[in-house]
Amino acid sequence: LPPTIAIDAMGGDRAPGAVVEGAFEAARLFADTRILLVGREATVKQELDRVGWTSAQAPNLEVLHAENVIDMCDSPVEALRRKKGSSIEVATRLVRDGSAIAMVSAGNTGACVAAGTILLGLLPEVRRAGIAVTFRAGELPVVVIDMGANVSSKPEHLIQYGIMASLYAKSVLQIERPRVGLLNIGEEDEKGNPLAKTTHELFLKTRLNFCGNIEGNHLFRGVVDVVVCDGFVGNIVLKVSEGLAEHLLELFKTTVEGVFGDGRAPGDTSGTAQKLQGSFGRLRERLDYSEYGGAPLLGVNGVMIIAHGRSDARAIANAIRVARRMAQENVNKHITEEIRAVSALAQGA
Amino acid sequence: LPPTIAIDAMGGDRAPGAVVEGAFEAARLFADTRILLVGREATVKQELDRVGWTSAQAPNLEVLHAENVIDMCDSPVEALRRKKGSSIEVATRLVRDGSAIAMVSAGNTGACVAAGTILLGLLPEVRRAGIAVTFRAGELPVVVIDMGANVSSKPEHLIQYGIMASLYAKSVLQIERPRVGLLNIGEEDEKGNPLAKTTHELFLKTRLNFCGNIEGNHLFRGVVDVVVCDGFVGNIVLKVSEGLAEHLLELFKTTVEGVFGDGRAPGDTSGTAQKLQGSFGRLRERLDYSEYGGAPLLGVNGVMIIAHGRSDARAIANAIRVARRMAQENVNKHITEEIRAVSALAQGA
Repeated sequence: LPPTIAIDAMGGDRAPGAVVEGAFEAARLFADTRILLVGREATVKQELDRVGWTSAQAPNLEVLHAENVIDMCDSPVEALRRKKGSSIEVATRLVRDGSAIAMVSAGNTGACVAAGTILLGLLPEVRRAGIAVTFRAGELPVVVIDMGANVSSKPEHLIQYGIMASLYAKSVLQIERPRVGLLNIGEEDEKGNPLAKTTHELFLKTRLNFCGNIEGNHLFRGVVDVVVCDGFVGNIVLKVSEGLAEHLLELFKTTVEGVFGDGRAPGDTSGTAQKLQGSFGRLRERLDYSEYGGAPLLGVNGVMIIAHGRSDARAIANAIRVARRMAQENVNKHITEEIRAVSALAQGA
Repeated sequence: LPPTIAIDAMGGDRAPGAVVEGAFEAARLFADTRILLVGREATVKQELDRVGWTSAQAPNLEVLHAENVIDMCDSPVEALRRKKGSSIEVATRLVRDGSAIAMVSAGNTGACVAAGTILLGLLPEVRRAGIAVTFRAGELPVVVIDMGANVSSKPEHLIQYGIMASLYAKSVLQIERPRVGLLNIGEEDEKGNPLAKTTHELFLKTRLNFCGNIEGNHLFRGVVDVVVCDGFVGNIVLKVSEGLAEHLLELFKTTVEGVFGDGRAPGDTSGTAQKLQGSFGRLRERLDYSEYGGAPLLGVNGVMIIAHGRSDARAIANAIRVARRMAQENVNKHITEEIRAVSALAQGA
């Protein structure tokens, strides 16, 4: 069997439609990989028909039945216990058993984190798993970890986040020596709450390319490649950014419409309204979460990619691309080696 | 003497020019108020000449000499100790002595917080001062507290922030019964880190119009009037928002320029490029921090308004307007009464 990537067909606001469509797209892109849709067989097959899938077109796209579905609003750990054989659980177990090289889900994030932590377990000496989201900073990607896998962190957890996200950025985003910053309320070394202060001191002792504190307004300026923060702050930053971007795009749209009316401004002989609308469409895409695909749950013993709940087909296909690359690049092996080496150094010191 | 508002003439990225200009504007707007520019007399007078001030036009605008200036990058508490008689210190002392009803500074935020806390002291039974910044959420204002006066808070501090910001929103923004939300990583009651969880429970027991947790993506949607968070999170949210808004406006501008070139697109006979540029200018203004003026340091025994470091003349004039209103409305008296009442209730319980 070729390497398999398990997809939670039932997870996400637009599931199963968008997930099936994205998986079909990925199956055609990566003919060397088996794409396994995990979910209610009848429903998934219906969607496959709808998107026009045939085994001739993508023989590497298959379906594995899973009876249960964890909803977006379910309480994670409880749902995992109560809803046995959910698509998230089945997909994760495939990774644990070695039947899949990775799993992708746009479903309940908390349930994914719980499934990853409980079923896959943590990599040796890793203390906490963290979600690493890739943003766009101008033309460059920036990886922010943790986006909410854990709500309360210790300095050692943040240091490990920095190490794991650096290795991820190096392998998957091909950044040779990622610059690491600590999200803080000032650039000076002594700034911050107790967590940030201690973490800063510890980062200085690592072998990472640590560039010091980074303030919120520099997050989108491409001054570092990896930004470390605790999951409470990271989750709020992620959501504030999404909310603000949406709000601004809306304002922007209203502004353009105010000038052009319904897009056929009187006297607009040059088609500028249309051109502008096209440009905005591309801008919206650039700002879209779908571009960099899903976010890996770093630190678990297996590749788990958590896609945005609002993922469309393109976002799902991109998440599958990221999952495939992370598995191929053996990111978890690099993480294990580095965490071990750091730990050995610390014991030697 | 009419009521006096002391202005730190030397504080801010564009000081003293923009500060003097804004103070002049405010002096003309509020003829019943004495506007006292505190700073290096010769420098300030030079700026007054430059902006065309004459005592006939605004006799209520005066200058008080202060020898020292605390720079934006100075370490707050140390600078306050070392740079005796700084404009921030002198302006704050005027409030303490009852010579001024309020002070406004666009200077070093940390130094303002230190001066406010040390020189004015806290209101009775107030445990921590907090910076309350007013954002725009669609058409409505939303007050977020704390934006960084303290980097590490306890639940009781956050509860007091909620009480103080509610009374401020009621008096200054004229919102009858402000809806209060707790910034958190999920809407469900049990979400969050230990601080958020305990604070949530305590908020339910207050007399505030507490609406539960609010997620980052709802910050700009006008679902609540007051958002409470600790200063570390608040400061990062503030700066991420500023950075992202700037980044997006830049992208928008590039997009428009890409379509219109230098603003004279060939065939653009209807002047749409010009209209669009005008609309964007207004949009930029709407998003500007200057609109709601400065942020009060709530909890100190006196009115201190901290304006954005990048304040222009309009922002300074708006900060003076907020300072005047906060003093006139006796916000600190209301805060003292409510905090006392809550405290008495707690002791009775």
